[in-house]
Amino acid sequence: MSRQNIFDDPYFFSSYQELRSGKNFNELLEQPAMRALLPDIRGKKVLDIGCGSGINCLEFSSQAQRVLGIDISTKMLMSAMKENSAPNIEYRLLDMEKLDEIDEAFDLIYSSLAFHYAVDFPRLIAQCFSHLNRGGILLFSQEHPITTCSVNTESRYVKDEEGNVFFKMADYQAEGERHIRWFVDDVIHQHRKLETIINTLTAAGFTIQSCTEPCPDRKAIRQLPRLANELIKPSFIIFKAVKGD
Amino acid sequence: MSRQNIFDDPYFFSSYQELRSGKNFNELLEQPAMRALLPDIRGKKVLDIGCGSGINCLEFSSQAQRVLGIDISTKMLMSAMKENSAPNIEYRLLDMEKLDEIDEAFDLIYSSLAFHYAVDFPRLIAQCFSHLNRGGILLFSQEHPITTCSVNTESRYVKDEEGNVFFKMADYQAEGERHIRWFVDDVIHQHRKLETIINTLTAAGFTIQSCTEPCPDRKAIRQLPRLANELIKPSFIIFKAVKGD
Repeated sequence: MSRQNIFDDPYFFSSYQELRSGKNFNELLEQPAMRALLPDIRGKKVLDIGCGSGINCLEFSSQAQRVLGIDISTKMLMSAMKENSAPNIEYRLLDMEKLDEIDEAFDLIYSSLAFHYAVDFPRLIAQCFSHLNRGGILLFSQEHPITTCSVNTESRYVKDEEGNVFFKMADYQAEGERHIRWFVDDVIHQHRKLETIINTLTAAGFTIQSCTEPCPDRKAIRQLPRLANELIKPSFIIFKAVKGD
Repeated sequence: MSRQNIFDDPYFFSSYQELRSGKNFNELLEQPAMRALLPDIRGKKVLDIGCGSGINCLEFSSQAQRVLGIDISTKMLMSAMKENSAPNIEYRLLDMEKLDEIDEAFDLIYSSLAFHYAVDFPRLIAQCFSHLNRGGILLFSQEHPITTCSVNTESRYVKDEEGNVFFKMADYQAEGERHIRWFVDDVIHQHRKLETIINTLTAAGFTIQSCTEPCPDRKAIRQLPRLANELIKPSFIIFKAVKGD
């Protein structure tokens, strides 16, 4: 079975490009939180898992010694090579669940909103660990378990009689595939409990440094009013973990 | 201002005693998960924060060298001293936010469902850290942030048109006091984001060993059918952290 690759669906790709270019949850919420957690990468080696169109790789390349960006989408990588290339960036078509095909170690492994697609999470995290130098950092964001948990995702925000808005959640304890409507139908995310994320990190040998559940500020909500929903429940969660020495 | 002490409210106390004696969420869900995480305490010193009627202190006392149980409820401690005393257990009337009044260090600090009452969480966690020996363990359970977050807690479970049951949540990003109806009105819990719990532990110097979001098994649900709600969303979260050496 080949890996799910919605990013090469023509309709998905154009809608997604549009989304990523404008004022959106990534630019206003997840990316600022990720940037605030970046370690010093001057002269270091960086692996970007699920690098997409390479925006972050280009940013890393101004300080890092070498950047390797991997993705499963040919379209994304073509866009990356065209728009965000630099002499010290290499883009490679590679499934994040096949890190064993990479024969080098890094000081930072970075991944923005990709890990909720990984099927074998313990293997992914163990391979991140083995591809980090001592003292190396794993920094990743993914959909929050509160967001991924529900099997039925129709009409998730409800208003009660007094006008208070709530978020409906269910199925938290049942880990596994979730079929989610996102531009194109039937995008498959993997729901994992918070417990599983944390315990997988520690079991692999990582020391958790911090966790972030990004919260929009007033300015961001003014730019994109829909972000106010993030005050009700977080869409994303970020972990920063270190391979201790 | 004196600390909130609902446990000495006469109505609350009798209802609570009844609850704790029967088949309930604590006995069937939280306590088994906590027991599974207990470190070896043979010959060690244990502090039980919010020890209540001392059931756990008595259990610890069969192996530990010394057990100190603290609680803010005189009624609870009287019950503990009457029913669960042992030569190596000391019960003391003390607010968990005044650990600085304790002049000794422990190998295990244990706390079952008390930390969501703490107002100054960073101070509590820092004081736990300073009252642990090197290699000592902090093991605590508290209400899950998903459970504490909503300001309005009326009718939290809703059924949609197809009969699916959902849990309504809101206000996740707004930390602080929550007034909750629990036997007696207006019990005050403190809502803290997961981010805050994790980052407070690491900022204090703790290494997080594991996180548990207890899930009932079939047998427990047969004994208490209401536990099936726990499959929808977890009520409790447990952290085990070590003071590294």
